[in-house]
Amino acid sequence: MKDAPLTDSNRPLPGFPAERLRPLAAGLLEELRRISFDGVGVTRECFGPLETAAQDLVAGLAATHGLQVDRDRVRNLVVTLPGKDPRAPFIATGSHLDTVPRGGNYDGAAGVVAGLLALVSIKLSGAIPPRTLKLFALRGEESAWFGKSWIGSHALFGRLTESDLARARFDTGRPLRAYLEDVGADLDAIARGEPLLQAAEVAAFIETHIEQGPVLEAKALPLGVVTGIYGNLRHMSVACRGEAAHAGATPRFLRRDAVVAVADLVMRMDAHWARWIDEGKQLVLTHGIVATDAKEHAVSRVPGEVRFSVEIRTDEWESLKAFHGLLQQEAQAVSRARGVSFHFDEPIVNRPATMHPAWAERLDRLCERAGVPHMRLPSGAGHDAAVFAHAGVPTAMIFIRNAHGSHNPREGMELDDLLLATRILADAILMEEA
Amino acid sequence: MKDAPLTDSNRPLPGFPAERLRPLAAGLLEELRRISFDGVGVTRECFGPLETAAQDLVAGLAATHGLQVDRDRVRNLVVTLPGKDPRAPFIATGSHLDTVPRGGNYDGAAGVVAGLLALVSIKLSGAIPPRTLKLFALRGEESAWFGKSWIGSHALFGRLTESDLARARFDTGRPLRAYLEDVGADLDAIARGEPLLQAAEVAAFIETHIEQGPVLEAKALPLGVVTGIYGNLRHMSVACRGEAAHAGATPRFLRRDAVVAVADLVMRMDAHWARWIDEGKQLVLTHGIVATDAKEHAVSRVPGEVRFSVEIRTDEWESLKAFHGLLQQEAQAVSRARGVSFHFDEPIVNRPATMHPAWAERLDRLCERAGVPHMRLPSGAGHDAAVFAHAGVPTAMIFIRNAHGSHNPREGMELDDLLLATRILADAILMEEA
Repeated sequence: MKDAPLTDSNRPLPGFPAERLRPLAAGLLEELRRISFDGVGVTRECFGPLETAAQDLVAGLAATHGLQVDRDRVRNLVVTLPGKDPRAPFIATGSHLDTVPRGGNYDGAAGVVAGLLALVSIKLSGAIPPRTLKLFALRGEESAWFGKSWIGSHALFGRLTESDLARARFDTGRPLRAYLEDVGADLDAIARGEPLLQAAEVAAFIETHIEQGPVLEAKALPLGVVTGIYGNLRHMSVACRGEAAHAGATPRFLRRDAVVAVADLVMRMDAHWARWIDEGKQLVLTHGIVATDAKEHAVSRVPGEVRFSVEIRTDEWESLKAFHGLLQQEAQAVSRARGVSFHFDEPIVNRPATMHPAWAERLDRLCERAGVPHMRLPSGAGHDAAVFAHAGVPTAMIFIRNAHGSHNPREGMELDDLLLATRILADAILMEEA
Repeated sequence: MKDAPLTDSNRPLPGFPAERLRPLAAGLLEELRRISFDGVGVTRECFGPLETAAQDLVAGLAATHGLQVDRDRVRNLVVTLPGKDPRAPFIATGSHLDTVPRGGNYDGAAGVVAGLLALVSIKLSGAIPPRTLKLFALRGEESAWFGKSWIGSHALFGRLTESDLARARFDTGRPLRAYLEDVGADLDAIARGEPLLQAAEVAAFIETHIEQGPVLEAKALPLGVVTGIYGNLRHMSVACRGEAAHAGATPRFLRRDAVVAVADLVMRMDAHWARWIDEGKQLVLTHGIVATDAKEHAVSRVPGEVRFSVEIRTDEWESLKAFHGLLQQEAQAVSRARGVSFHFDEPIVNRPATMHPAWAERLDRLCERAGVPHMRLPSGAGHDAAVFAHAGVPTAMIFIRNAHGSHNPREGMELDDLLLATRILADAILMEEA
């Protein structure tokens, strides 16, 4: 990873055309919402027709502003503004256009819009950037569809496996492979694990994204500079097995009740989590899915099996491993105490990613210079930026304040905040490295 | 309720034909298993085709032994052996032929087989009983299908409500009403709440049933005489509502996690239950069904809603009400502590039932006379006998030892124990009252 200090050898854009960009941003976001409104929120499926339609909207606006429009071999949208030295590694920005089912309009799309408008603002200024600038509208970021995150960026760096390609979409059961074929991706190259983008081609990747948590909103700060992206460890389905029995006739001391056992484990881990937070550690723990076995459960039957998910996210790899170890210890203790057994599936692990310190400092400095209130904060949510960082690309992220969290129709980003982010992004990518 | 003392004015059957009945019992039980084996256990749906087929097997064996075979207006099977005085109230025995999904072969069927063989043994002996004897193979005993227990006996006594008739079967969604029509029951009379059997027509109801718990097995006693039947209170579906949120970006202090809240409630109630047991109270508590909302849950989403069932069973009505009160208090405490809300559906309540003391004493006495080791014990499980008792019929129950509990394919009743029960039952119903 390049770790040279960055200096601001070029001046930022003297007059950022906020009022000229505002209607473009508003119109594009509104059009994205219109095409993908599902009656409750917005739905743009990974590698689906509405993700493609969203790309086409972005591509159309890019083309009308004289930017070059392409699709790469993963069928990510790539918008290019050529720089003075076309052979030098380019600076990339971007985010994703897909959403969770019944999600919000800004998670992903805000970063694509900010990136597009940053390129448009530079193009409008007549400046020719030192390096070529590229906007990526990456496909398939959300894990909700195939249980795999950041598919578009993983594919770019040759990091999709055969078992990833065989993953079934949760609602249709069709494999990811089929959806890649639908959009015309180069399935052979992706299946071979061929890198379709070399880290060495990319001088930096700067992703803008709404904050998915409440911190900036609570602190009344429009922007945040991300210090790192939490890693996560997921068990999609852990089975707790006890013994089904007649609810009326089985006394307490003879029960091996899977529901009580899972409740016990959940409460033990909740207590550990509370202690870790008190000690100042960064951690979240979620059991998003819990269910007794619908084939055999009944109101008057002691439940014999419960399946549940586990997700742990931390900023440090060592913490992630340690908390996962605690989970397994407590599962053993509950097994002994309650006569059940826990069967853990193979965990899916994404290591934490550190943002590039020099780029993060540059973003800080540009915010200060522009008088934009901001703070440093970690990202509890995962992002395509983590894939770029793990591939060795110097990576940074700007968070935009957002009310009501993400992945829901109430996402509450303000257009003013998006334009501030666009301005800082444009300044950052226009500058030359030392 | 008649409460006159019973005297043994007739002698029990001098020679009980155990070896003649044994192949009939074995053959009938095996045939019941064969027609209803589902690949895992046995399944005979309430008011479904396999329940009807099981009735037909019992009816066939009854008819070949010269017993009278009828179906009543609920389409329960009724097998009759006329007595000396056909106008006197009859003595009834019986149980049910339906099972839970993937259940065992003996829960219900053992009591029907014992009742049939008791009538056959009396018929074979040539004795004419003082009173007419009737075997009821009652329909729809298990609550697993419609959330309502003892449908066949409730209907007989005019105790099904409009909302009972509208209950949807858990797997098909079709209402109970439609299943009653399928089998040709007198839906109009049932819907009017017309009693199709008057308590005054029935001198006594003696139900034989496998013990669904482990007590007789643990104490090495083949039979038990039931003292009373636990009442129960059921919430089929309680909703705990918090707020769905991004699992990575929502810190602990801002979560309203429905899974953690339900785990908290389950553990609080488990602690209360343990304390009540220590104090010598009779109680069981079961959450047989628990699930996050499949329409919106995800591994990486803080769960916004969990639905779960509650079943409380006790031997005393006051205890049932008191423990239910505790549940609601703790739900309020969890709501305050964790920012969620609990929404309880209308509870389904069955009051505890007391067995008729004189009949229980007769069963004790007959066991002693026959040298059958036995004990008195309460029934934690509910039975049709409770409906007869609540209607005012003098009611008693014989439990048969059974390993591995009930409602599962491993039910382990021995044929020898079934024949002992049959013998005691035949003796009991053949005798005249004082």
